Amino acid sequence: MDRIRAAIVGGSGYGGGELLRLLAAHPFVEVVEVTAQRAAGKPVHAIHENLLGTSDLVFTDRAPPALAREVDVLFFALPHGEAAGRMREVFDAAPPVRVIDLSGDFRLRDPEAWAAAYGKPHPAPDLLASFVYGCPEAAREEVRAARRVANPGCFATGAILALLPLARSGRLEGRVAVNGVTGSSGSGTDPKPGTHHPERAADFRAYRPLVHQHVPEIEAALRAAGARGLSLAMVPHSGPFVRGIFTTAYFFPASPLSSPEVAALYRATCEGEPFLRLRSETPRVGVVCGTNYGDLSFAVSADGRTVVCLSAIDNLVKGMAGQAIQNLNLMFGLEETAGLRAPGMHP
Amino acid sequence: MDRIRAAIVGGSGYGGGELLRLLAAHPFVEVVEVTAQRAAGKPVHAIHENLLGTSDLVFTDRAPPALAREVDVLFFALPHGEAAGRMREVFDAAPPVRVIDLSGDFRLRDPEAWAAAYGKPHPAPDLLASFVYGCPEAAREEVRAARRVANPGCFATGAILALLPLARSGRLEGRVAVNGVTGSSGSGTDPKPGTHHPERAADFRAYRPLVHQHVPEIEAALRAAGARGLSLAMVPHSGPFVRGIFTTAYFFPASPLSSPEVAALYRATCEGEPFLRLRSETPRVGVVCGTNYGDLSFAVSADGRTVVCLSAIDNLVKGMAGQAIQNLNLMFGLEETAGLRAPGMHP
Amino acid sequence: MDRIRAAIVGGSGYGGGELLRLLAAHPFVEVVEVTAQRAAGKPVHAIHENLLGTSDLVFTDRAPPALAREVDVLFFALPHGEAAGRMREVFDAAPPVRVIDLSGDFRLRDPEAWAAAYGKPHPAPDLLASFVYGCPEAAREEVRAARRVANPGCFATGAILALLPLARSGRLEGRVAVNGVTGSSGSGTDPKPGTHHPERAADFRAYRPLVHQHVPEIEAALRAAGARGLSLAMVPHSGPFVRGIFTTAYFFPASPLSSPEVAALYRATCEGEPFLRLRSETPRVGVVCGTNYGDLSFAVSADGRTVVCLSAIDNLVKGMAGQAIQNLNLMFGLEETAGLRAPGMHP
Amino acid sequence: MDRIRAAIVGGSGYGGGELLRLLAAHPFVEVVEVTAQRAAGKPVHAIHENLLGTSDLVFTDRAPPALAREVDVLFFALPHGEAAGRMREVFDAAPPVRVIDLSGDFRLRDPEAWAAAYGKPHPAPDLLASFVYGCPEAAREEVRAARRVANPGCFATGAILALLPLARSGRLEGRVAVNGVTGSSGSGTDPKPGTHHPERAADFRAYRPLVHQHVPEIEAALRAAGARGLSLAMVPHSGPFVRGIFTTAYFFPASPLSSPEVAALYRATCEGEPFLRLRSETPRVGVVCGTNYGDLSFAVSADGRTVVCLSAIDNLVKGMAGQAIQNLNLMFGLEETAGLRAPGMHP
Repeated sequence: MDRIRAAIVGGSGYGGGELLRLLAAHPFVEVVEVTAQRAAGKPVHAIHENLLGTSDLVFTDRAPPALAREVDVLFFALPHGEAAGRMREVFDAAPPVRVIDLSGDFRLRDPEAWAAAYGKPHPAPDLLASFVYGCPEAAREEVRAARRVANPGCFATGAILALLPLARSGRLEGRVAVNGVTGSSGSGTDPKPGTHHPERAADFRAYRPLVHQHVPEIEAALRAAGARGLSLAMVPHSGPFVRGIFTTAYFFPASPLSSPEVAALYRATCEGEPFLRLRSETPRVGVVCGTNYGDLSFAVSADGRTVVCLSAIDNLVKGMAGQAIQNLNLMFGLEETAGLRAPGMHP
Repeated sequence: MDRIRAAIVGGSGYGGGELLRLLAAHPFVEVVEVTAQRAAGKPVHAIHENLLGTSDLVFTDRAPPALAREVDVLFFALPHGEAAGRMREVFDAAPPVRVIDLSGDFRLRDPEAWAAAYGKPHPAPDLLASFVYGCPEAAREEVRAARRVANPGCFATGAILALLPLARSGRLEGRVAVNGVTGSSGSGTDPKPGTHHPERAADFRAYRPLVHQHVPEIEAALRAAGARGLSLAMVPHSGPFVRGIFTTAYFFPASPLSSPEVAALYRATCEGEPFLRLRSETPRVGVVCGTNYGDLSFAVSADGRTVVCLSAIDNLVKGMAGQAIQNLNLMFGLEETAGLRAPGMHP
Repeated sequence: MDRIRAAIVGGSGYGGGELLRLLAAHPFVEVVEVTAQRAAGKPVHAIHENLLGTSDLVFTDRAPPALAREVDVLFFALPHGEAAGRMREVFDAAPPVRVIDLSGDFRLRDPEAWAAAYGKPHPAPDLLASFVYGCPEAAREEVRAARRVANPGCFATGAILALLPLARSGRLEGRVAVNGVTGSSGSGTDPKPGTHHPERAADFRAYRPLVHQHVPEIEAALRAAGARGLSLAMVPHSGPFVRGIFTTAYFFPASPLSSPEVAALYRATCEGEPFLRLRSETPRVGVVCGTNYGDLSFAVSADGRTVVCLSAIDNLVKGMAGQAIQNLNLMFGLEETAGLRAPGMHP
Repeated sequence: MDRIRAAIVGGSGYGGGELLRLLAAHPFVEVVEVTAQRAAGKPVHAIHENLLGTSDLVFTDRAPPALAREVDVLFFALPHGEAAGRMREVFDAAPPVRVIDLSGDFRLRDPEAWAAAYGKPHPAPDLLASFVYGCPEAAREEVRAARRVANPGCFATGAILALLPLARSGRLEGRVAVNGVTGSSGSGTDPKPGTHHPERAADFRAYRPLVHQHVPEIEAALRAAGARGLSLAMVPHSGPFVRGIFTTAYFFPASPLSSPEVAALYRATCEGEPFLRLRSETPRVGVVCGTNYGDLSFAVSADGRTVVCLSAIDNLVKGMAGQAIQNLNLMFGLEETAGLRAPGMHP
């Protein structure tokens, strides 16, 4: 079988680095080019030092349309807002190319919802509906059939996986509190005050309470899975670790749910899923790092009136590059776990 | 003025160490003795290495009743469950002695509630009602009048301070989700799997979801402050930092609350409070470390149907030893901030 | 080709966990059994949570001789001192079995040197000379021919790799200062005061200055490579990270060495070595984590009278399990990098 | 007694923040003004969030000469290189003002040595000799008599304190290896790649090996104390902690030194020193954090041919602001420990 030819647009960030790291071990995909405006001409290992000895690629600055004509699939790993304006010329240049966009630019179908979440009009609103939201556990068949995939946000992935069992049951409705905690790698490669080590190393804080831009994509995915009248109250937090997102969701069902009922919902959702692991105790960020796993757990109060849904993921893998490769595998009819089977490290 | 004579029972833990550190700078209190069974005969700086050059005390193993006869106030900093059985003999030996207990042994007035929270009958149920729950911001006058104070739990302090403005308004009712995150010092001085550095340093996890023993003391304190029909859903988490507790509480009011209304409640609660700081942005654990401050903030959703209440404290100071000294100051009619004014470090 | 059958004796520690993690991806080796007295009967993923979904093995408590008769190679990952007394019965039971011992029990050939380093007589001194010291970069051919390999210590690996280029040149002699810094995973899985998170997370300290037991094995390996009259002054340190060892060695040559001369020595040593990477700037612990790489660099003072030799390794991989697998590959005539090619993570 | 009036030039960095934190508790000094060009008009607690509730000062942008006329002492806490060009106008405007400069601008007496260390000519070479190098433990009487003090560098402080006992004995000579490890706060408040949390949190690396600009000031201070023909080989390292510098110095004496001899030297140096603590075991960064202590220890090899000198300091206190205040106390005839007695935190 010929290897699938992939290129990465904007590969000097952490997302691009993880795509390169994971695809280096993929049996059916070859990364033939990776672009990065600021790093053009440098070997990828000059930026992603872990790839010294693994990758001989050199960053280029070719424009996406030219790239698109030569590859089977294009990963967009640009900063949020940059892919939106450049996608049309890609599709014009190479209509059959498959695209997986890691940014938030195509995650919502409704231009007005997008504008509300991102604070500006979408530059290519007519393209929004051509993208499939690429959360395989929530919408595997849509992904299989897709040529254009919007890869979910990291907080969104954590929240969707935690709540998916309840959403599918049709029991999820009303106000749900979603408490998310992310490591510092979620802020990207550019140093900034919130990721300055002296400030971050022993700190814990909230940010953008109740107004994070991932809320609409979570609500949309959960509604599509069966939730009704859902309204999320989400507060993201910054924790002093590098990788991982931990989600704690609080749901107060209108009528009581028993622990065995909830357990059955989680088992049903996790069964057969290659990347969901139902933990008997709490998920742990430290146990999913480096992997595409989403570890889940739950708790139900004695009176059945409170259900707590827990998940842990690696924000850069399941919350970004790993999920993108999982989507690629589905889009090309490969085994879903290809290139994604390596266990994480412990400790 | 004669200095108040204080002794610490069980001073080899982090709580005892913080009492010694903070009282070393107290203008009106002298620690005359500190006991520690396992460390008797050792200088306190052999255990609390930070006190080398500050304290010349040596741990003793005298029994609490003997101690009580010689001091004005006795701090109990024993592991949970150990103070309960030894308190009666203290009061018999020295009826007028003032006692501040840092454990959970006397935080609930109702023996049945205590037994439910701690999983065993209380060994001295008739003494429970003689203790005042020592959260000065919630019950300053009771503390002033008290001879026996049960110092609040660390998670409890964080949750009570975060929700106190809403409780006082009479608007707090129904199900409230309380998400707490603690640093590793909350686990005490004994090494254990959950605080083993290789396991903790890059991890984040939940524990005891919905069944933590601090829930009843939080509910009781908030009800006393004005909450109605309150039912907390609390999930504690372990974060990879040493000091601090961050609390994120989610409240869905029956009728909408506006952001200015909530702001007014927070301002009213914080005004005049020497240790509450209303932050315009998020509280930060890193900014309260080492201090007795509780930093507060809040967010209200656009529709007024969700209120998020945030707090950050140092679990060992405001959540333990600092609050205990604040209680001492009130009990002895001292200035409330005596010995507690040193700012924290940054970074 | 039939897969090589391997078993691990004492597989519940971090070394055993890393053997399992890395061998899960080895194309030619199958782990058929792993023992752990305290965890017998439990699935390996109950202890090594990262292996949930990767390994279905269950810990057994079979004795090493019985195991040895059924496998091609036996890894010993017991605590230091435990393998020494059990090795003879293994060789008696299964003379042809290959053994790779991760402990310090067989790293020195001279029983007296061993007794001096470890503070007690060796229980099987006649077996010492039958083991080859398994540092492939220093002694590849000996390893290829070996049936019994003593895997180097973690600090030893870092120091040997840093100084190997100078040793080979014949220029290394006299007093050399070796400053080593290890992450907390080097202390093993059992919680202890020095790895208690509140104590370790923001600390840095030295331990066992000038008397660490790895010194004799480093000196022996460097002498075998060409150093003369070498005497190491080594101070190990504990740093607040989990994985990695950073080594800074200071050498004051009797006659000046120029930077180009030293560069040529490093290039000559690194050339063709699959796991040595010569870095133009400083090595970084964060860049080798999870991998079998040893990253090297050096600096020479303007007057040529001081040479600084730097290395970074992952203590659990190149300093332990990865090097053990590299040794296995050589002992069985496999490609040296088999199972060890996955790049590390960044960040 | 009138309080000493102090001002801080450039107070928005970590050094300025620590001056403000520590002077807030100083019984005899009042900070009357603090400047910061970029933050002028903001309250100091907007930048130093720990000072909310402690300081009501607002950053100004007054020029140093104007300030100098109104105060008794001026702290310069500007980035390296900025004070040098502005000092003359200060002395012209207010000849009697005392100055304590925290930068490297006036730490060397010899303009050529300064130019070699800092890579450019000094803008006011004739002023160099008017400054006293402010390391009280090495040169207390000079500081007492000084009007202008150059505060030592952080690495320099750690190295000088570690080696001072040997230098005073006249035994310190020849090549000495100095291994220094600093926390991230030493890089200042501006985010940069080396302090980006994802890169720093689990990393360890060297930088500027053998060419760090603190070497000449260390050599000068130790020679003044009694060292002969000294030549330091220093390698600074970046560790994943926030505060602290740990120094490990390796000295190979020409004739053997016994452990009791070295112990006597350390005891003689530490005796009577208010901020030196001789530890029986290793110093620990975590135990000096927040304080002006320098913790010392040593080890001697069995043959007496290697002496290892260890120190731990807080880079922002003893290595910067605390030492500056210690210098102020001496310059004004105050008790040397005034404002500096608070113990550190543990954990």
